[in-house]
Amino acid sequence: MDAGTDKPAASGETGIDPRYLHDWSGLERGTPRVLHRPRSTEEVAAIVAACDRDGSKITVQGGLTGLAGGAVPADGDVVINLERMNAIEHVDSLEGIMQVQAGATLQQVQLAAEAAGWYFPVDLGARGSCQVGGNASTNAGGIRVIRYGTMRDAVLGLEVVLADGSVVTSLTRLVKNSAGLDPRFLFIGSEGTLGIITRLTLRLQPKPGDTVTAFAALPSLDGVTSLLRDLRRALGPSLSAFEFMSTRFVDLSLRLTGVARPLETAAPWYVLLDATGAPGADVTPALHQALEHAMADGLVADCAVAANGAQGQRFWRVREGIPEILTELKPLINFDVGLPWVETRGFIERAEATLTARFPEATHLFFGHLGDNNIHVVSGPHRPVDFHAVDEIVYGELHGRRATISAEHGIGFIKKPFLHVTRSPEEIALLRRLKTALDLNATLNPGRVFD
Amino acid sequence: MDAGTDKPAASGETGIDPRYLHDWSGLERGTPRVLHRPRSTEEVAAIVAACDRDGSKITVQGGLTGLAGGAVPADGDVVINLERMNAIEHVDSLEGIMQVQAGATLQQVQLAAEAAGWYFPVDLGARGSCQVGGNASTNAGGIRVIRYGTMRDAVLGLEVVLADGSVVTSLTRLVKNSAGLDPRFLFIGSEGTLGIITRLTLRLQPKPGDTVTAFAALPSLDGVTSLLRDLRRALGPSLSAFEFMSTRFVDLSLRLTGVARPLETAAPWYVLLDATGAPGADVTPALHQALEHAMADGLVADCAVAANGAQGQRFWRVREGIPEILTELKPLINFDVGLPWVETRGFIERAEATLTARFPEATHLFFGHLGDNNIHVVSGPHRPVDFHAVDEIVYGELHGRRATISAEHGIGFIKKPFLHVTRSPEEIALLRRLKTALDLNATLNPGRVFD
Ligand SMILES: Cc1cc2nc3c(=O)[nH]c(=O)nc-3n(C[C@H](O)[C@H](O)[C@H](O)COP(=O)(O)OP(=O)(O)OC[C@H]3O[C@@H](n4cnc5c(N)ncnc54)[C@H](O)[C@@H]3O)c2cc1C
Ligand SMILES: Cc1cc2nc3c(=O)[nH]c(=O)nc-3n(C[C@H](O)[C@H](O)[C@H](O)COP(=O)(O)OP(=O)(O)OC[C@H]3O[C@@H](n4cnc5c(N)ncnc54)[C@H](O)[C@@H]3O)c2cc1C
Repeated sequence: MDAGTDKPAASGETGIDPRYLHDWSGLERGTPRVLHRPRSTEEVAAIVAACDRDGSKITVQGGLTGLAGGAVPADGDVVINLERMNAIEHVDSLEGIMQVQAGATLQQVQLAAEAAGWYFPVDLGARGSCQVGGNASTNAGGIRVIRYGTMRDAVLGLEVVLADGSVVTSLTRLVKNSAGLDPRFLFIGSEGTLGIITRLTLRLQPKPGDTVTAFAALPSLDGVTSLLRDLRRALGPSLSAFEFMSTRFVDLSLRLTGVARPLETAAPWYVLLDATGAPGADVTPALHQALEHAMADGLVADCAVAANGAQGQRFWRVREGIPEILTELKPLINFDVGLPWVETRGFIERAEATLTARFPEATHLFFGHLGDNNIHVVSGPHRPVDFHAVDEIVYGELHGRRATISAEHGIGFIKKPFLHVTRSPEEIALLRRLKTALDLNATLNPGRVFD
Repeated sequence: MDAGTDKPAASGETGIDPRYLHDWSGLERGTPRVLHRPRSTEEVAAIVAACDRDGSKITVQGGLTGLAGGAVPADGDVVINLERMNAIEHVDSLEGIMQVQAGATLQQVQLAAEAAGWYFPVDLGARGSCQVGGNASTNAGGIRVIRYGTMRDAVLGLEVVLADGSVVTSLTRLVKNSAGLDPRFLFIGSEGTLGIITRLTLRLQPKPGDTVTAFAALPSLDGVTSLLRDLRRALGPSLSAFEFMSTRFVDLSLRLTGVARPLETAAPWYVLLDATGAPGADVTPALHQALEHAMADGLVADCAVAANGAQGQRFWRVREGIPEILTELKPLINFDVGLPWVETRGFIERAEATLTARFPEATHLFFGHLGDNNIHVVSGPHRPVDFHAVDEIVYGELHGRRATISAEHGIGFIKKPFLHVTRSPEEIALLRRLKTALDLNATLNPGRVFD
């Protein structure tokens, strides 16, 4: 076990590289007692078993790109970071299945899939740092969810170390398995509170064909949801991305990135979308036809279909101006709520009105992967004392609407006070029963998701 | 609670219609004490709470089409059958989402989806009788899994009555929800052992375009898996069914159904496949091209693409000769194992050789939805005393192969003795911990899946 263990120096503070003390949320909680970077499942199991015996608390770390503070350790914690468990163990290139250690980065997985003639569809901006174990723990998705789903759809099997140090190897690799409850779903999305994922079998996809990108201006938010419905019907699984953005978002992104405006027509809402066919099939005619229908129906005021990949990438640059926006507006709050489509307009109108009335100086932006029910709200700059008031405005609009306070980044520490807004007491009680059944002493990631 | 309760007559035996005593497996276990057919979640909760107090054991019943005996009651059981909870409560036709009571039949759901301009993709022969609650409990799939997945992919939210009579309403309807572990996955596929599903939110799909059917003759089993790989790559999500059948299966089906032979070329293996495009798109050229490649590569010896829907249905009739085959070969055993593609040929060769050597008089057929890793083995006629030996031969070939003893029908009672073949002791221990956490007194469906 020693090989992978960095005992902190005598001082206890300086022994651990500060990069292990926070994730992308910026939250810092304290100084852990020891950092372990194990190389094998057996090492993880031994560390966990020792903690279980001596009552130590464990913080599990992937690539530390999380936005909810879940991987941030507290004073005295034992940190287990999986970065050294990054082997691509096996690729079955007949069936398109990969077995990996949990610390492999998303990018490593994507490249290994590509090298074997396949495609791994989960993709997000943090791909170079985030780990597939972290992706599974947060049920990450990214921009292709509308076509391929999230990690839940990509993970076929898991190996997990439980809080008592026992190892459950359920590295099945079957699309359909009805032999008793499938343990993988306990661990996907539970943010390291029920077990440490050490290995995964992943389902790869056939390489897709060419992608055509379009940028559309829409007169209303109801038009945005109607357009999405019509495109899903017309294009089926060829619709591979659908991002909506408020005019404020687009204007700010264009100013900060210096990108040329994709469309001259001014409109309150814009949609960026991709259509992707099978290899060799051209989806452009079907896309043109669907957009012409949408213009004839008055859903779309104007639109541009990219003539080639380079132009498509320029369109995407508008959506990808987020890092610049986040820098410009900080200190800010970045929400990742989820709502039924029918609730989208009401939510945005009310949240925007209330935020603007209460914080007229701040900027409030609305955008997201609508096909996955996901709406991002970015609001800033704010004084840290106002953060809670902003949270209360946005989350307050979700009550009783079949919504979620987190469609993307998870609960971690940061959203824990609001979990009750969209999870009933009975749901939270059920989560607690599971936590108690699997981790009676609250050894693993204590304090995350719920208390 | 009384409205939905049929107290058995004083004799206790004759009071309950015999149709509630068995499912399609034929297993019979005994005479239940009372049959309840509640009309609401509150009634279910009250019945369960009463059983929890007085120590009664509950058998949960859907449409009783199961093939694993899971819904078959024992002497003295309290039976809860959901057939009266069959309301289609709401269809959101903007987003394609339906809320239903669990006792709605699969066919009711399919028709309600169609009436709203949508499509519900889970489909199986028992559609007129099986219930969506039963489908979810067994994670049913059917012939379109290769394109749309199983019930796990179709269920967005659940309402469940737990063993203590508490109700967890988690009727979320969001594609992506990262707000803590998603409780629905505890109940999908767990065959009624952890809770009674009372309501579901279901994800509907856009109506697909036209389907083209093809029938191909293949010289080898390795060719079958290679063809599947190549078609997935060439057609992407347009590949909507892929069924393989041994020559014995095809010959017997043709003889029993009287259907005309789709192809004159004799071959040891046949594949029946569907390609389905988006509405208005014609996948026939892409399918022709892919099949021509496969013939040039020697994977396919001969093939026929149906000229129209009627011819396509005649091709399907060969695969759908199963009821006739099951009648012809009974008493028989019908397996639904699952294996990685690379293991398929070895498994079939060994199982066939051993079965033929040991039971030369019986017929042994191999077929299945290969894209979902599913292989059916039908072996019969057998004397009931030989059933166990047949089981041991087939399941014996699965040891150590990342396989499952049930890719389709679940474990129930019938496969319980073999669960250990493809689930490790640690996996079974984890299932037990969950069962204990949620149903300490083993009130719900005792004796199913594991002891
Ligand atoms: C630029 C950027 C873009 C992003 N885009 C998206 C996006 O589009 N969609 C999206 O969903 N998210 C997105 N995220 C959020 C983040 O990248 C994801 O949540 C990611 O999946 C986290 O992976 P990680 O390895 O960095 O996990 P960490 O941040 O290290 O950990 C996240 C949580 O998972 C737990 N954990 C980590 N590894 C394991 C393991 N092996 N076993 C058990 N628990 C573990 C941790 O304890 C913690 O609770 C983005 C983040 C950034 C910085
Ligand atoms: C002709 C035919 C074809 C079939 N084809 C397929 C196929 O292609 N793919 C496939 O996967 N299966 C198939 N099956 C098997 C069967 O139809 C499925 O398993 C079906 O989903 C069972 O539904 P049911 O409502 O009849 O459940 P039942 O048989 O009544 O019960 C099945 C199990 O689920 C539990 N259960 C039922 N309802 C609930 C509920 N509301 N809450 C909790 N637990 C519940 C029961 O206790 C039992 O353990 C087929 C069966 C037949 C007869």
